Amino acid sequence: MKKTILTGIKPTGKIHLGNYIGAIKPALDLAKIPDYKAVYFVADSHGLTKIHTPNELRELSYGIAATWLALGLNPDKVIFYRQSDIPEIFELNWLLSCFTPKGLMNRAHAYKAIVDSNRESNKDIDFGVNMGLFNYPILMTADILMFKTEVVPVGKDQVQHVEIARDIAESFNHTYGETFLLPEYKIQEDTAVLPGLDGRKMSKSYNNTIPLFEEPKKLEKLINKIKTDSLPPEAPKDPDTSILFMIYKEFASPNEIAKMREEYAKGISWGEVKRELFNVMNHFIEEPREKYNELMASPSTIDKILQEGADKARSISAPFLKEIKRKIGFYA
Amino acid sequence: MKKTILTGIKPTGKIHLGNYIGAIKPALDLAKIPDYKAVYFVADSHGLTKIHTPNELRELSYGIAATWLALGLNPDKVIFYRQSDIPEIFELNWLLSCFTPKGLMNRAHAYKAIVDSNRESNKDIDFGVNMGLFNYPILMTADILMFKTEVVPVGKDQVQHVEIARDIAESFNHTYGETFLLPEYKIQEDTAVLPGLDGRKMSKSYNNTIPLFEEPKKLEKLINKIKTDSLPPEAPKDPDTSILFMIYKEFASPNEIAKMREEYAKGISWGEVKRELFNVMNHFIEEPREKYNELMASPSTIDKILQEGADKARSISAPFLKEIKRKIGFYA
Repeated sequence: MKKTILTGIKPTGKIHLGNYIGAIKPALDLAKIPDYKAVYFVADSHGLTKIHTPNELRELSYGIAATWLALGLNPDKVIFYRQSDIPEIFELNWLLSCFTPKGLMNRAHAYKAIVDSNRESNKDIDFGVNMGLFNYPILMTADILMFKTEVVPVGKDQVQHVEIARDIAESFNHTYGETFLLPEYKIQEDTAVLPGLDGRKMSKSYNNTIPLFEEPKKLEKLINKIKTDSLPPEAPKDPDTSILFMIYKEFASPNEIAKMREEYAKGISWGEVKRELFNVMNHFIEEPREKYNELMASPSTIDKILQEGADKARSISAPFLKEIKRKIGFYA
Repeated sequence: MKKTILTGIKPTGKIHLGNYIGAIKPALDLAKIPDYKAVYFVADSHGLTKIHTPNELRELSYGIAATWLALGLNPDKVIFYRQSDIPEIFELNWLLSCFTPKGLMNRAHAYKAIVDSNRESNKDIDFGVNMGLFNYPILMTADILMFKTEVVPVGKDQVQHVEIARDIAESFNHTYGETFLLPEYKIQEDTAVLPGLDGRKMSKSYNNTIPLFEEPKKLEKLINKIKTDSLPPEAPKDPDTSILFMIYKEFASPNEIAKMREEYAKGISWGEVKRELFNVMNHFIEEPREKYNELMASPSTIDKILQEGADKARSISAPFLKEIKRKIGFYA
């Protein structure tokens, strides 16, 4: 019996190298493990908690779908859908809210962080908080429980979300008998935090990203902007503290990586490393970039793929929700 | 152009005289006004914020549907459905939550009342509050806005709900352009608060109710329990301060009412008033009670009626939600 593994990808900004190395690549790898049945979705409804500009939300949501497909996610082998296409998730969201103590939401990390920051700047503690943000962990719970998810890959800061999902599931099961599977989290330990152009974590909010599907010329320019130290070309260099090497090894072959390690030890100029990095990256990205651009030029193609995914997802969620509603006493 | 008028009936307890006189009768009257298009629903999903016993929720929900139908609600002339049968309401609920400042919910009367009572008894302010209770006004807003409701009949204590719905609608319209109609409330001024057996407001929580569809013998017994003063039979009595008369005039014909006023003035024994009250009530209730019992014995008949209502409701909600989701940027 395959284990269901679920990941939602929130539209927050143009996909960059940090997203690819930190989230997309590991998820694509997990989807290939035969023990897993992968359920991946574009979390557009989560995105709405922050993005209230239609063009932006649309671009980003299609962008996510196109990125994953371009990078080789096989929609025939996984369930890949747009969250907002599955009405059952939002029905379940309401049902679960009736089994979620408000105190649990008061203690959610993301909400608490906003409260703390509001307090520090002497604002009302709920300043800028909409109810989508506050309810976020419940919708995430619905995402997880709807598909009887067993494994949720998370970063360390997201462990609490899975714990909340377990709490809510247990409260429901306690009332109506075994209904929901209790999900487990799987911490993605080896996920490196990729530094951005300025050396800080690569992040949209720092404006220091390298977009994944950048055109060659721009890509080359951005790579040339990556900060290096002032060691002279001939000085031996440590690959394991080098951002350039960190990115390089995500795109190069094992042979190329081994060879580059030698070059570092011997002494290689940063300029040359950057050239090599551009070469392997551009080579790796060439095909997916083309596929990505094709898909982005044809939203209806993306719609069709996501719609087929939604049909698959709803063949699970619709009968399950019916069973849940009957247990609750909505009908005889 | 007809105005849409919307009322949800929450399953909270067996329908009693207070419900009938205070809510059902005025709503049935409104449904007959040709200017109005009445949208009435069994608010089972609201009920879930409090009722976590399947048998109870089921009995009460079917009970509400059967009561309204038995009392003459014509499902061909109104839209009458079960809230949980309309997925679009729960999708809209999420979308609207992203436009609901948390502060607005903090200030909702029902939530504040719980907080106050917790504070008084030195409990955590959110003790016993589930997120369904806290989110309640948002789901109510979705109920209202989904069907482009223009008029919401409310008691004085529910005016805030309509104001919240307007606030949320305005915030959404401000972001995406005119989308939702701003609902107006209509205060049911002349709705008498019916006293119960003990003289306090008739309410399930005081255990002082007269169930509307009580069997004759029990009904007679309950009527005999209604508190009266100790005036002797021959003493003239004031109909306008008499609970018995207050109930009597809801079921008697104008002629009977006028005659009873005279009897009061002349002097009539409380026992005789009670007998007369029983007679008119039992006469009025006889047919609906039979209809009610028939319906309750056949849940599938109720299901069919509500399903037809849901189909009508969804012919409005489904295309409207699609339009809303497109505006938000969920798809091209």
